[in-house]
Amino acid sequence: MIELDVQQFAGIETLHARPAGKTAQPLPTLIFYHGFSSSKLVYSYFAVALAQAGFRVIMPDAPEHGARFDGDEASRLQHFWQILQGNFSEFPQLKEALYDAGLIADNRLAVGGASMGGMTALGIMTRFPEVRSVACLMGSGYFSTLSSTLFPPPQTADIDAILTPLAHWDITRQLSRLADRPLLLWHGEEDDVVPADESVRLQQALKREGLDGQLTYHQEPGVKHRITPMALEVTVDFFRRHL
Amino acid sequence: MIELDVQQFAGIETLHARPAGKTAQPLPTLIFYHGFSSSKLVYSYFAVALAQAGFRVIMPDAPEHGARFDGDEASRLQHFWQILQGNFSEFPQLKEALYDAGLIADNRLAVGGASMGGMTALGIMTRFPEVRSVACLMGSGYFSTLSSTLFPPPQTADIDAILTPLAHWDITRQLSRLADRPLLLWHGEEDDVVPADESVRLQQALKREGLDGQLTYHQEPGVKHRITPMALEVTVDFFRRHL
Repeated sequence: MIELDVQQFAGIETLHARPAGKTAQPLPTLIFYHGFSSSKLVYSYFAVALAQAGFRVIMPDAPEHGARFDGDEASRLQHFWQILQGNFSEFPQLKEALYDAGLIADNRLAVGGASMGGMTALGIMTRFPEVRSVACLMGSGYFSTLSSTLFPPPQTADIDAILTPLAHWDITRQLSRLADRPLLLWHGEEDDVVPADESVRLQQALKREGLDGQLTYHQEPGVKHRITPMALEVTVDFFRRHL
Repeated sequence: MIELDVQQFAGIETLHARPAGKTAQPLPTLIFYHGFSSSKLVYSYFAVALAQAGFRVIMPDAPEHGARFDGDEASRLQHFWQILQGNFSEFPQLKEALYDAGLIADNRLAVGGASMGGMTALGIMTRFPEVRSVACLMGSGYFSTLSSTLFPPPQTADIDAILTPLAHWDITRQLSRLADRPLLLWHGEEDDVVPADESVRLQQALKREGLDGQLTYHQEPGVKHRITPMALEVTVDFFRRHL
């Protein structure tokens, strides 16, 4: 049995799932990020599945999402990359709040996410060596190139101001930081939002440089931009082995 | 806080979610059905959201899904309509098991589902007047026509044997049975799996015959075959009002 409720950490509303009766005791802990235009609640099946496997799972709402959404969909659609950057900026205080609350056992902290959440997880992996393992489902870490086709900032925006900070989190020149800990990539081959080629490109780049020793890689034929039972299962299996 | 675990009812594995501490006491109860090629676990965010609103939620795996899937995806893809029929056939014993366990307060039982699960919910509404209210998200009840384009049975199958039993559950000639209790329809306008026209057609048919007095109807622009935060919110709101 698991328990799940809504809880604030570092001023951010999160879903908090864990095995029943283990609300306050230290556990191996995952921070898991939802996708764009969605919410922690719509992605809460990851919290259910991972808490059933024995983990504590903390799912924050991204800026302008879920409890933090003001209802202006048109505006949000123009802020994809700022929202991703917001996830990055908020990660340190979120993580510290969990450590301060004594919720993380033996520094066993991992990060995962799907779609924009997967992009968040990959970016965090480049900058936080203490994160033990990372899962990126139907995401990408090639922000500098992808931002020209996926939700590009509007022409009227100060594009440099939006994209320059993201360069620090882009994986292109930081492949070694994705290679020194376990990494899971999963992608549906027919993904119609974030192209599956983004994961293929990363897998091949790691392989080419001999950096794929800790990579778990899955692509699933015939699947568009959605999470399948297999995707959920490989995610749970991955963290059972690597957290 | 909510609690969630896996439990067997009538020999079927289900997810069982409820407000914390209310495992055994009678509650207003929903049976909620997942979509094709997915699982109760991947759709468990409906259980999370509805249990947070105070309901007991029982989510069974459909035949050949989740805990009942043997891994043969190619075979399952040919069985869409038999699996839907399986949901119908299993509903009475599932419902009775919940009544027998004393879990349903004051006969307050509702049914919901998304995609194939929404089709299941609509079909059940035609045959079980005791079900208090029904939510169908991105589904259809026009099985006889839809089966020629959505996962049609293979040419080699005995098509009559597959489709004849479904005619009893088809809504076309049973509109009045969808009109005497609250019904929610939600559909993404750009749905690329179950066309949004299926819900438009039903809404217009009910309206034309003056049968839409208890209908709550939402369509969401720009949304393909996926559940949005708004879809989840209108579902929770609907059952708060009507269960």
